[in-house]
Amino acid sequence: MAIRLSAQAEDFEARFRELLSSKREVSEDVDHIVRDILEDVKRRGDAAVLDYTARFDRLQASSMAELRVSAEEVAEALKQVPQKTLDALELARDRIHSHHARQMPKDDRYTDPIGVELGSIWTAVEAVGLYVPGGLASYPSSVLMNAVPAKVAGVERIVMVVPSPDGVLNPQVLAAAHIAGVSEIYRIGGAQAVAALAYGTDTIAPVSKIVGPGNAFVAAAKRRVFGTVGIDMIAGPSEVLVIADETANPEWIAADLLAQAEHDAVAQSIIITDSADLASAVEQAVEGQLKTLPKAEIAGASWRDFGAVIVVPDLDAAMPLSNRIAPEHLELAVADPEALLKKVRNAGAVFIGAHTPEAIGDYVGGSNHVLPTARSARFSSGLSVLDFVKRTSILKCNADNLRQIGPAAVALGEAEGLAGHARSVAIRLNL
Amino acid sequence: MAIRLSAQAEDFEARFRELLSSKREVSEDVDHIVRDILEDVKRRGDAAVLDYTARFDRLQASSMAELRVSAEEVAEALKQVPQKTLDALELARDRIHSHHARQMPKDDRYTDPIGVELGSIWTAVEAVGLYVPGGLASYPSSVLMNAVPAKVAGVERIVMVVPSPDGVLNPQVLAAAHIAGVSEIYRIGGAQAVAALAYGTDTIAPVSKIVGPGNAFVAAAKRRVFGTVGIDMIAGPSEVLVIADETANPEWIAADLLAQAEHDAVAQSIIITDSADLASAVEQAVEGQLKTLPKAEIAGASWRDFGAVIVVPDLDAAMPLSNRIAPEHLELAVADPEALLKKVRNAGAVFIGAHTPEAIGDYVGGSNHVLPTARSARFSSGLSVLDFVKRTSILKCNADNLRQIGPAAVALGEAEGLAGHARSVAIRLNL
Repeated sequence: MAIRLSAQAEDFEARFRELLSSKREVSEDVDHIVRDILEDVKRRGDAAVLDYTARFDRLQASSMAELRVSAEEVAEALKQVPQKTLDALELARDRIHSHHARQMPKDDRYTDPIGVELGSIWTAVEAVGLYVPGGLASYPSSVLMNAVPAKVAGVERIVMVVPSPDGVLNPQVLAAAHIAGVSEIYRIGGAQAVAALAYGTDTIAPVSKIVGPGNAFVAAAKRRVFGTVGIDMIAGPSEVLVIADETANPEWIAADLLAQAEHDAVAQSIIITDSADLASAVEQAVEGQLKTLPKAEIAGASWRDFGAVIVVPDLDAAMPLSNRIAPEHLELAVADPEALLKKVRNAGAVFIGAHTPEAIGDYVGGSNHVLPTARSARFSSGLSVLDFVKRTSILKCNADNLRQIGPAAVALGEAEGLAGHARSVAIRLNL
Repeated sequence: MAIRLSAQAEDFEARFRELLSSKREVSEDVDHIVRDILEDVKRRGDAAVLDYTARFDRLQASSMAELRVSAEEVAEALKQVPQKTLDALELARDRIHSHHARQMPKDDRYTDPIGVELGSIWTAVEAVGLYVPGGLASYPSSVLMNAVPAKVAGVERIVMVVPSPDGVLNPQVLAAAHIAGVSEIYRIGGAQAVAALAYGTDTIAPVSKIVGPGNAFVAAAKRRVFGTVGIDMIAGPSEVLVIADETANPEWIAADLLAQAEHDAVAQSIIITDSADLASAVEQAVEGQLKTLPKAEIAGASWRDFGAVIVVPDLDAAMPLSNRIAPEHLELAVADPEALLKKVRNAGAVFIGAHTPEAIGDYVGGSNHVLPTARSARFSSGLSVLDFVKRTSILKCNADNLRQIGPAAVALGEAEGLAGHARSVAIRLNL
């Protein structure tokens, strides 16, 4: 059973702070191992990747070419996936594509009042690596959520890596790659795959950016190669916050809380409500639904250890708490969700109204399900087309306007002790 | 004297690769020291910051309040800076402000063909920490380039930290902070300042994002706190690439190359030209100008060790090389710069035409001078308003359109083995 807090209790602030700082991630100290793997792949390339793949994934191969997934294997995988799943993946791809197309930034070029031309030009990252975990967390929906925005941005080369422990690959993941238009796929994983993407090997040309979730080794490797390549966020365990009032259906809310909780024993589901009756009904519904949930053990542990039911005197009191939690997913299951939406400051994604369960956003809503976790919505955004483009700023002076603003640049160069800076302007003004 | 390469020489590709991989940064291994400092500040807060400040900056203080820069000190600093410098800083601030105001992203909310509402809402990061180095690299222009975009974005709280070794603070930096509207300033630096900003102490409330350049300790600390807070890029040594043809003035180009070189002995200045005559004239002009440059020692070392003059058969051959270099700064000093601009793929900022020396962009052009170094323009952009805002995506289904797309979500939830996900949708559809 999740904890229950009342915003009017005397110890509420202390208990809420405790909830905010609850440490859900076990930070394994794998950094020294990862450092050695990165160095080794940098030095020995393909040979090192083959060694680690044999050791960690128990997959023997005599060359990297063998580890590349062939078109025939992809075709075979497509046959293994039910048509219903393929149709759903295609619907998801199309909806993700059309939503993300709206995010494409536009070039801007203009002349300011004194005649200086300025602007911004956007171009796609040329090559992107997409990490897909093996085993349990190998989700076809995640392949779409990472690959489709890259395609929309115009990335020419997308390289997918996915480990196949003991040679087992999820055919759904290959199907999703095919549906997203990804064709360069290697069955490698871990820090060695991150290193191969970042530094390149004889077989794998290096990429400029690496995205996608992974375990502690992958996260540590991404953190270390950051700078050599770009990386997306370091994802933590997932979380949902549901704000609900007396109009909410407790069974629906319970289902949403458990959908989050079934991800991981360290996932977190929180409900804030102004109705103590709803709070009790949801608690009861959670217990009831847990009885028939296949992943009841995981979901139950998450709900017991990290779940929370917070009762507030009125909905106005909910939003400041929500903004402090900065949830990855925020559901507004209230009579007037738009009023609350106006007050959202920190949240990865908002699901508005009774008929928008968070799981719709995981799959077919069209928005991205790669969202900032662990309170990072305070400073970061979900994955978007912007993660696959970069901006070049442009500046163009002529002799006239250089004469107007140049002397100030000369003054600042001199003030900063950079006479060479000052000279490069002054020499053009015959100063 | 810089190296000279000819694109038509047989060994060109090998030598160009060598240039690309020239290691300009000495990566000091300070990570274990930084880890301990971060842990200590996290645990002991203000007391730890005071201890490190006494030890590293030789600045004794009995409380953090003492280390806060007072309004009186700022007023005193303003008096010490010449009016000419203040005027130039104000011109710079205004031009930076008006350029960055155009970068503010707009909210987007729309209804798709089947009636699902989607959108993106942008909000400012609530609190940002701005690191300003002490000593030599303490530049007032950098204060403006970091603080003004944050102001434009709507960041409510900007906290500046700047170490004052032996108690010495650059009055220009305080003046720039004042001109940018930054009023919460602490004279602390190093990893301890980064930790105070990220974790908070009794005196300093934590921020959500930390920006600004720093030494190896600061860079390592930013890398470690990434996740707890957001960070900007990890800046490396600066570089310029000038593409010039026979129409270019060799003295002007030489001045631009040296303006870059004077930053740092590991800065890099490269010229690519289709004119061997210009190449020789520029080489000569560099030697001439070095004789009178105050920072001749630094600039000379940079030019000798990392400078390069590349002669290409025609300007078409220049752009692919430029895109591989992915320069922080790219000057197009040619008769038809717009033709080359169309081919720019990887560059932090482009300076177009003979009358746009890069130094204009450092100070008063209006665009940002915080730009991706060390080839990171392949995957990242210069600092902008986007670094101080974040996007919340929104999704709103009604009963009708949930009935249309819900079944596909149920199918994917089931395919991924997430029955709780499937149920949270199915329960609303009475499936």
